[in-house]
Amino acid sequence: MKQIFHEIRINTKGQGLYSFTNETLSWLNKQKINNGILNINILHTSASLVIQENADPNVLYDLKNFFDKLAPMDNKLYKHTTEGKDDMPAHIKSALTNNQITLSIKGKKLMLGTWQGLYLFEHRLERHTRILSHHLIGN
Amino acid sequence: MKQIFHEIRINTKGQGLYSFTNETLSWLNKQKINNGILNINILHTSASLVIQENADPNVLYDLKNFFDKLAPMDNKLYKHTTEGKDDMPAHIKSALTNNQITLSIKGKKLMLGTWQGLYLFEHRLERHTRILSHHLIGN
Amino acid sequence: MKQIFHEIRINTKGQGLYSFTNETLSWLNKQKINNGILNINILHTSASLVIQENADPNVLYDLKNFFDKLAPMDNKLYKHTTEGKDDMPAHIKSALTNNQITLSIKGKKLMLGTWQGLYLFEHRLERHTRILSHHLIGN
Repeated sequence: MKQIFHEIRINTKGQGLYSFTNETLSWLNKQKINNGILNINILHTSASLVIQENADPNVLYDLKNFFDKLAPMDNKLYKHTTEGKDDMPAHIKSALTNNQITLSIKGKKLMLGTWQGLYLFEHRLERHTRILSHHLIGN
Repeated sequence: MKQIFHEIRINTKGQGLYSFTNETLSWLNKQKINNGILNINILHTSASLVIQENADPNVLYDLKNFFDKLAPMDNKLYKHTTEGKDDMPAHIKSALTNNQITLSIKGKKLMLGTWQGLYLFEHRLERHTRILSHHLIGN
Repeated sequence: MKQIFHEIRINTKGQGLYSFTNETLSWLNKQKINNGILNINILHTSASLVIQENADPNVLYDLKNFFDKLAPMDNKLYKHTTEGKDDMPAHIKSALTNNQITLSIKGKKLMLGTWQGLYLFEHRLERHTRILSHHLIGN
């Protein structure tokens, strides 16, 4: 079994969902792995990962909106306020979604459903560079 | 190391939690893997996966009820309404729970706690056939 | 590829987030694995796992507080009440966070971000001993 490591960096420009399906696939397609596991970790706690519908952009808008209402940017609600009004809500949204996703590769294909896309969910207001660790194990 | 792929299909009849622990175990018990990893992915974004208590059915009722209140089926709350009042709440509930679960197998046994069961969480109102990809890697 | 199993037990004293990063690392550092995957499962459904900020303890306070408001300990809200007012909220909080986490090891190092720590999230009020299954696969 081979193991291959890779990093994908996404420059975010404020809150929202950023697709990285193409970045992952274009790297994956160059690797000589027929069957295996792809473990993706985000190395941050104020942004997170979700697998979501890749068709209607309104889904992404509604997701962002839902999480904003659920964990409002209101310093009165939190003790941890020194890093800005968006930081504690970001940690909460991160706990509610995923820090990591484990996917399967079968016959050189990443096993995602037709309507599934990989998204980085940025929860901070400012620009950030987010590191997505990719670890492929297979043969 | 061997890799084995399998699909379990669950026919759902509206919202709710559907146990598939038995389906997974009856397949797993036929495989000649002593130790390894089982990666389960649901290939949809309007249904999801949870590990939950397998004892009192009221737990499943309360879970469904909690998520319905948290993400109500009310078109006024969402932009994405073309696929029905239950679709956007389904995407939200999917983001709040899991698209995939990675389990360990030790000495031919799936490592689940005594009270843990595997559930497909259907969030749509109509009938659906849901595909659960199973990927076993071990020896 | 080698596979190594290990159990970490955490004695909890009521609700809250308990770091186990040190316990995991001190075991991991004794294993002769350069590259691989670490699959951590909690074998319970009323406590869960999160990766969160390891710097400001107020983040942990705010997280606990947020989840308590989201799933209140109020028997009137639930059917499943026989195990105490904290049990059904515990199952809900468990569904909203994680039962398992899959991490990567590269060059003998566990791939976590600078500010990321591993936490057991205890949702019950009484003392419990929680079992965290660790499964390492690599070479």
